[in-house]
Amino acid sequence: MIADQIVPPQRTLMGPGPSEIHPSVLAALAAPTVGHLDPYFLKIMDELQSMLRQVFQTTNPMTMAISGTGSAGMETCVVNLIEPGDRMVACINGVFGGRMAEVAERLGAEVTRIERPFGQVFTPEEIREVVNRVQPKAVGIVHAETSTGAWQPLDEVAQIVHAAGALLIVDCVTSLAGAPVEIDRLGIDAAYSGSQKCLSCPPGLAPVTFGPRALEAMDRRKHRVSSWYLDVGLLRNYWGSNRAYHHTAPINMNYALHQALRLVLQEGLPARFARHLLHHRALKAGLQAMGIQYSGDPQHCLPMLNSVLIPDGIDDMTVRSQLLNDFGIEVGGGLGPMKGKVWRIGLMGETAKKSNVLLILAALEQCLARQSRRPQPGAGIAAATDVYLQS
Amino acid sequence: MIADQIVPPQRTLMGPGPSEIHPSVLAALAAPTVGHLDPYFLKIMDELQSMLRQVFQTTNPMTMAISGTGSAGMETCVVNLIEPGDRMVACINGVFGGRMAEVAERLGAEVTRIERPFGQVFTPEEIREVVNRVQPKAVGIVHAETSTGAWQPLDEVAQIVHAAGALLIVDCVTSLAGAPVEIDRLGIDAAYSGSQKCLSCPPGLAPVTFGPRALEAMDRRKHRVSSWYLDVGLLRNYWGSNRAYHHTAPINMNYALHQALRLVLQEGLPARFARHLLHHRALKAGLQAMGIQYSGDPQHCLPMLNSVLIPDGIDDMTVRSQLLNDFGIEVGGGLGPMKGKVWRIGLMGETAKKSNVLLILAALEQCLARQSRRPQPGAGIAAATDVYLQS
Repeated sequence: MIADQIVPPQRTLMGPGPSEIHPSVLAALAAPTVGHLDPYFLKIMDELQSMLRQVFQTTNPMTMAISGTGSAGMETCVVNLIEPGDRMVACINGVFGGRMAEVAERLGAEVTRIERPFGQVFTPEEIREVVNRVQPKAVGIVHAETSTGAWQPLDEVAQIVHAAGALLIVDCVTSLAGAPVEIDRLGIDAAYSGSQKCLSCPPGLAPVTFGPRALEAMDRRKHRVSSWYLDVGLLRNYWGSNRAYHHTAPINMNYALHQALRLVLQEGLPARFARHLLHHRALKAGLQAMGIQYSGDPQHCLPMLNSVLIPDGIDDMTVRSQLLNDFGIEVGGGLGPMKGKVWRIGLMGETAKKSNVLLILAALEQCLARQSRRPQPGAGIAAATDVYLQS
Repeated sequence: MIADQIVPPQRTLMGPGPSEIHPSVLAALAAPTVGHLDPYFLKIMDELQSMLRQVFQTTNPMTMAISGTGSAGMETCVVNLIEPGDRMVACINGVFGGRMAEVAERLGAEVTRIERPFGQVFTPEEIREVVNRVQPKAVGIVHAETSTGAWQPLDEVAQIVHAAGALLIVDCVTSLAGAPVEIDRLGIDAAYSGSQKCLSCPPGLAPVTFGPRALEAMDRRKHRVSSWYLDVGLLRNYWGSNRAYHHTAPINMNYALHQALRLVLQEGLPARFARHLLHHRALKAGLQAMGIQYSGDPQHCLPMLNSVLIPDGIDDMTVRSQLLNDFGIEVGGGLGPMKGKVWRIGLMGETAKKSNVLLILAALEQCLARQSRRPQPGAGIAAATDVYLQS
């Protein structure tokens, strides 16, 4: 059996990632492959690291793209910083906090889980209590919970964790390049992201950064890192100054990320963050005008991941299938306990634009109208348009 | 700092991978991204698995592409089959056999290393002796040593390993789609490859396959797999029938591999293997006519990875720099103890064609002539052409 040639449908990607991709990024992806030790590629790696540092707002030398997806970035951070028997606190208010705990437990860490309901964030007091009680080596927390849309404030958390002498590991998979991720200002010790969210690159690479305390902790390890592939001690030799062969980097994916980072920096971080907020506000106004409410704490909703409650009497899969098949729009369903209860509407990177906001509101109105619930015609689009006109 | 836009040089990729890439594969790479749970992508995954099974010559349901490079494929095989305290035999006759041992040791396995000089292969007697002595859970061996060009026969090895009740893990990173990798006929229990060798796809994915005994061994594990990202128990739910979300697959890389597999199957495996052999014979005749000898056992030289001794008085880096800068050709240097002693000339996938063979012979002749050693003018090309005319 030889399959037919690939001719993918053109979707409007409004789910939790992958997000829409600028044509110039796809063009870079398809540029001629060179070797992973080619002087040209080494220059691209240098530039990619320099641009990643700007997006992470850090000067950390050890800032690079792991050759795997966001989850590989998570595993890289945890596996290099946590040894068997180490105490780690995992802050769980969604699927990805739970995943960090599981990754650490598999390594033989003593993991203390603190939990908040899905959609809520942690208070500084909760962090202080557990850090004082456990005296952990590291605290893992999710800046932007892709499963719930919760936006965790980190300023006080970082102070508390560092005052206790612990390392702070931050999941910024969904926030990087869509909201401020201030590695150096907050002293975040390790952070990981994914290429396919607000960076608007195809999935396949995981930007990570490690600060000086994290590198010291790696230098003091008693056990070898259990993963050879993700061992930062080895990766430092490839992404660091001597460029020693470790593995064959995904050349073309790195081209694509390079171009995606160029677009981020050409737009500028403040303008990019403002754009995400603007389209979030318009979407939110439109959804609320249609009677659709956000699922999480309204004080802590991410702009790029809008988790909304599926209205009573509306069937999740019916609507998502209609959106996909009749309108070509992907939105995400709920994960874990949120399955069937929420939709996750992404406004990440290139996806965050007026035409997409108006399209999803128009399409959702039609889908809801076909079921029991008929919103007031045009109300969503009118409310969103008001936001745009006032901006 | 915003870097300049990517405009890579067009190289002739004759190193140990990445190999040359057909334009249709780069076009597939740049096709519109869809979501990782999109019905279209699930169909692509099905087709990709079906085509991978044909190339691996297996019916193993658990045949898939790991979201990382070849080394991640190695780690996937070892981390899922080996638990702390398990006995494993690692057959080391090059860098990649040594890497397999290191991956297993990091997991707390009791690894018995048997070694052959770089470029040699293991005899069945050597395997029988160690297997009887150690009674291992698994034996890891490299079918095609990318660091030396050694081609390990596997028929008797497989019988011996299985007669002892052990699992056979095979590195076919460099051989898959360029020489027969007969998973089912030999009963190989686990095998891993890379996308950027004879499959002629950009680097970034690692095809793997697991047979029934390997899956049983996973089911009987006492410890959880230390890697969450590479846990086949979880990946089975995504690549298996229920398509449960695990991680966001590298969508576009999978498009590219899909198209690369189409090209492999359209050519047909026997024709493809014959093509690799033909161009290897022509290259070898040409090199020998220029006084350049192969570094390994002449009975066991891979067709797609030609490891040749750098002639006396010739400087490695001078020649490779000239090849790259003056002729646009990448060849590989030696790894580990072979550094500075050999060149590794790849004839993998799309790279294996007459124009490349003639080009490298012509370019090498010029490079050697600029140093102390002046081959007889035209001798290499004439000898290679003879092979082509007689074929």
